[in-house]
Amino acid sequence: MNNNKKVNAAILIIGNEILSGRTQDTNTSTIALWLNSIGVKVEEVRVVPDIEETIIRSVNLLRKNNDYVFTTGGIGPTHDDITAQSISKAFGLKFEIHKEAYKILESYYKPGEFNEGRQKMIWMPQNANLILNPTSGAPGFNVENVFCLPGVPSILKSMLGGLKNKIVGGDPILSLTISLRTVESEIANSLTEVQNKNKDVEIGSYPFFQAGKLGVSIVIRSEDQAKINICNSQILEFVNEKKIEVVNR
Amino acid sequence: MNNNKKVNAAILIIGNEILSGRTQDTNTSTIALWLNSIGVKVEEVRVVPDIEETIIRSVNLLRKNNDYVFTTGGIGPTHDDITAQSISKAFGLKFEIHKEAYKILESYYKPGEFNEGRQKMIWMPQNANLILNPTSGAPGFNVENVFCLPGVPSILKSMLGGLKNKIVGGDPILSLTISLRTVESEIANSLTEVQNKNKDVEIGSYPFFQAGKLGVSIVIRSEDQAKINICNSQILEFVNEKKIEVVNR
Repeated sequence: MNNNKKVNAAILIIGNEILSGRTQDTNTSTIALWLNSIGVKVEEVRVVPDIEETIIRSVNLLRKNNDYVFTTGGIGPTHDDITAQSISKAFGLKFEIHKEAYKILESYYKPGEFNEGRQKMIWMPQNANLILNPTSGAPGFNVENVFCLPGVPSILKSMLGGLKNKIVGGDPILSLTISLRTVESEIANSLTEVQNKNKDVEIGSYPFFQAGKLGVSIVIRSEDQAKINICNSQILEFVNEKKIEVVNR
Repeated sequence: MNNNKKVNAAILIIGNEILSGRTQDTNTSTIALWLNSIGVKVEEVRVVPDIEETIIRSVNLLRKNNDYVFTTGGIGPTHDDITAQSISKAFGLKFEIHKEAYKILESYYKPGEFNEGRQKMIWMPQNANLILNPTSGAPGFNVENVFCLPGVPSILKSMLGGLKNKIVGGDPILSLTISLRTVESEIANSLTEVQNKNKDVEIGSYPFFQAGKLGVSIVIRSEDQAKINICNSQILEFVNEKKIEVVNR
């Protein structure tokens, strides 16, 4: 871990099913929470269709602007899975059979079951590093700072643990949430004052509905626990003055 | 409705809480499904932080490349709500009190309750068109082809109906789903053949788990029902040959 270093990432969600609204993306939240815990902040998310040119352009832009890029989707066996070939082109690398991936899948499937469709999943950019898949065999991979994961949420989750040694994070991003029985407009000015006094801390305000009642969650985020504590005190000060109830959520 | 015309849109999700993983975005799916139903196809989604410069740059890019842009989030009363001021700058418009919005909120709140925090929500780009909010008063707005909606999913949903007359869609995008008790690799080659024979139809393949069993949903999408029907027949042909069970989902 590099102290006092900010490390950022982008997520590229690849798949027509997210853009059509048919499938609700949950991978962004999974990846972002995990990255936060190892000190990597997600700066941008893009969702793009299964179009090679668009994937190539997006990957090449995001990998320049971020320490890490995580893609999800498009590494399965069907015709709409075009992530591996797109990444090869983005990096100008040969798209070829990955010997290690071949061995993994050959031993994963029963004799005779490693068919042509499944063999599509061993084609990768030259010298890609594998990301092992404890759930369903077929590995993901990374080329330099671009990490390609599957779209199925349960499989993606199972693969994050194996990535930990490959990602060098900065200070973990800490957060504190204060939930209040109030509405945003009652606290907006006081909260602005706190934000102005603590410019390098991220303070967010999020309305919620719980058991038929309105509330607001204030989220304080920083790499520095002391700074979070200062904001917390300043917020609780106006909360007490205004006689606003603090609630559990 | 303009027949035989493709109309596209981008969605810009504004909010640190989505990037941190704390909040799961559901608005993309809500907006995309609704747009599909009126013949507008979502081509791209971006999630960006509450940073003015980033919002301005994203809006200006997306509004050039798309018929419509929908933003969510950042139109409430707190310091982290900076969408309206950012849109003003993106269009080079004055940021000022919107008289109609003032009237709406003045009559929405009880006397004395229309405080400074709430008055922040009537500041908008000059001559913005309001998008009425049947849930919580504070309106959204659009400037040209950029439509700004709130981040709270229930409020956003309640505002879409009022937008219908402002959006001119193309042919509705139709879809048909065939769910199969199989795995992708068993059908990948046959499905590729169907896709190759029907290049202007979008065919997606999505694995699922249901009641402990694996399956694959094939989704056929097109503006032309006849083309969908042809793909459907061709798919059912190989499904029957392979003796794969069709399941309900």
